Amino acid sequence: MKISERRSHEYYMRMALSLAQRGTGTTTPNPRVGCVVVKDGTIVGMGFHRYPGGPHAEVEALSEAGEMAEGATLYVNLEPCTHYGRTPPCCPLIVQSGIKRAFIATKDPFPKVQGKGIEYLSSRGLDVTVGILEKEARWLNRGFFKAYEEGRPWITLKAASSLDGNVALEDGSSRWVTGQSSLKRAHLLRAETDAILVGIGTVLRDDPQLTVRMTDGRNPLKIVLDTNLRIPFDAKLFNEGMTLIVTSKDSPSQKVEELISRGVSVLQVPTDSGKLDIKELVFKLPSMEVHYLLVEGGPKILSSFFRAGLCDDMALFYAPKVMGKGIGMFSELSFADMSNVPQVKIKNVRRLGGDLSLEVDA
Amino acid sequence: MKISERRSHEYYMRMALSLAQRGTGTTTPNPRVGCVVVKDGTIVGMGFHRYPGGPHAEVEALSEAGEMAEGATLYVNLEPCTHYGRTPPCCPLIVQSGIKRAFIATKDPFPKVQGKGIEYLSSRGLDVTVGILEKEARWLNRGFFKAYEEGRPWITLKAASSLDGNVALEDGSSRWVTGQSSLKRAHLLRAETDAILVGIGTVLRDDPQLTVRMTDGRNPLKIVLDTNLRIPFDAKLFNEGMTLIVTSKDSPSQKVEELISRGVSVLQVPTDSGKLDIKELVFKLPSMEVHYLLVEGGPKILSSFFRAGLCDDMALFYAPKVMGKGIGMFSELSFADMSNVPQVKIKNVRRLGGDLSLEVDA
Repeated sequence: MKISERRSHEYYMRMALSLAQRGTGTTTPNPRVGCVVVKDGTIVGMGFHRYPGGPHAEVEALSEAGEMAEGATLYVNLEPCTHYGRTPPCCPLIVQSGIKRAFIATKDPFPKVQGKGIEYLSSRGLDVTVGILEKEARWLNRGFFKAYEEGRPWITLKAASSLDGNVALEDGSSRWVTGQSSLKRAHLLRAETDAILVGIGTVLRDDPQLTVRMTDGRNPLKIVLDTNLRIPFDAKLFNEGMTLIVTSKDSPSQKVEELISRGVSVLQVPTDSGKLDIKELVFKLPSMEVHYLLVEGGPKILSSFFRAGLCDDMALFYAPKVMGKGIGMFSELSFADMSNVPQVKIKNVRRLGGDLSLEVDA
Repeated sequence: MKISERRSHEYYMRMALSLAQRGTGTTTPNPRVGCVVVKDGTIVGMGFHRYPGGPHAEVEALSEAGEMAEGATLYVNLEPCTHYGRTPPCCPLIVQSGIKRAFIATKDPFPKVQGKGIEYLSSRGLDVTVGILEKEARWLNRGFFKAYEEGRPWITLKAASSLDGNVALEDGSSRWVTGQSSLKRAHLLRAETDAILVGIGTVLRDDPQLTVRMTDGRNPLKIVLDTNLRIPFDAKLFNEGMTLIVTSKDSPSQKVEELISRGVSVLQVPTDSGKLDIKELVFKLPSMEVHYLLVEGGPKILSSFFRAGLCDDMALFYAPKVMGKGIGMFSELSFADMSNVPQVKIKNVRRLGGDLSLEVDA
């Protein structure tokens, strides 16, 4: 393929990716998919997947294209499906529409698809190219891939600290470390995730709502790690949306039942020296339609996830403050010497009002 | 003054400031001064002050201009001098050169000048304008102004930490937190300052040289806070350059004398509950030709300076590392509640290799 030709295909694929991104926060358990149909250098159809049960991106784009799809080229960031799910499969529709050429960024890791879509289209005479902007396409659906390839969600650890790395003063007080802009960005992160996780310490101290407030968006599932089932029935987080309490197998069954009867989900997992087995939890999350997990702390929880290697990236917010001797972001981690200290990668730095926002790859 | 005219004057003044900046690190106890001579829209002379005893910026610029100075305009970032110092005064020379108009960014705070230069030029018929880019000019000579207006140097606190704010692990080990690029930048900071200050803990643990190595530049004065005079005679920092040991008035006079006989300066200051009175030290520094002080830590020292309000800005370097439970940047400071936590201002963010460099105004 000539460079100029490849550039043109990348251009339309980038458009498909950008359409796909508009489904962020609402498509799980489905992936984020965008589709562009191009005929003789003109875009004749565009679409993206909005929510489970809603039309797939290909269906939307082909319906917009109508008869113009005949002989056209289709760009889609994920392999089209061949199976009946909540909606009919896309592949037969693509063939029926008369599409002659298809560019697919990446294969679908979902066992019922996994190459079958590509095979279907190729065997019906379409010219199929796979792999354009594959890296970008995998990144866009990083939670979907993580869930099907590794069995757990994409995990983002979030912390808001002072410039000297404290998330709270010694007495635990932490309201408000960062400013309005960071807070708004943090709510946006919530709107883009499937579940938020906090420790019972945070609930008892701050009584947070854990909802999406400063922006539009669906409320994610709220998960509370609560070894000894200390959560009060009147905690604010019970007011709205779904909650999952994760507790030990030894927690009093009466309180477990009472919570369940109030519509709260409870998951009992084994403990190891008094700590909940978070692996047991995270590998169950994809089955609960959680492909993206935002861990909001506190430091004990952040440390546990980091220690267990259950951290894919971090969203760190720094306020222009000096808190001195306080509670550090990862205060429960300790390393024997400097050579054991884990290296991460600063991916993005942004100023948010007076604060600083870092995206860090773990 | 018309906006377009003002812009043109600012343009030449900015050039003078930029020339002045080239003296950074070598002019103290003199200020950083640059000068531009402009005739009929053409620059006919430029100069800057390089080192004490060297020609003043005005002398350099006027000498380059020669006879072209007749009827020309002069731009200088600091009021020209009228007194004999190590070199003859500039004002008479400016008048003799035939300069008709002078733009001066800011008055000289030095008692022997302080308005006398402006008066001298005005009374000899020059058209003198004071105040163009004054803020920038004061910033460029912030240490010089601090010394004459407040009696102490401009103080920069420097720290290198992990993303979670630790400068060392619990056992004190800290080599190397940040990478090569940050290290180089830190050496540049040393080259731009008049003195570096560390605590005896840093000396005993790391045995640093405290010299300028990864860049060109003069070695600044090395200052060690050493309450109980624990410094070993074979410390590496004695190998090169000048050292000042600050110790308590109770330190053994024999060791004090031994240090002095080896060419080391010793300053004995009062202690307050075992801590050296750093105010006593910093207000003596201008008389030792220190207008810029770089405090390199560790955390005890950084905390003391911050607590005493002896912090004008901070140079913070963050490595892409997670150190967990370690020693925080300002681990000796504590605040009763969030409303007491001091607010600072992030002025600049830069990526240095994999690290992050912050300039923070205190």
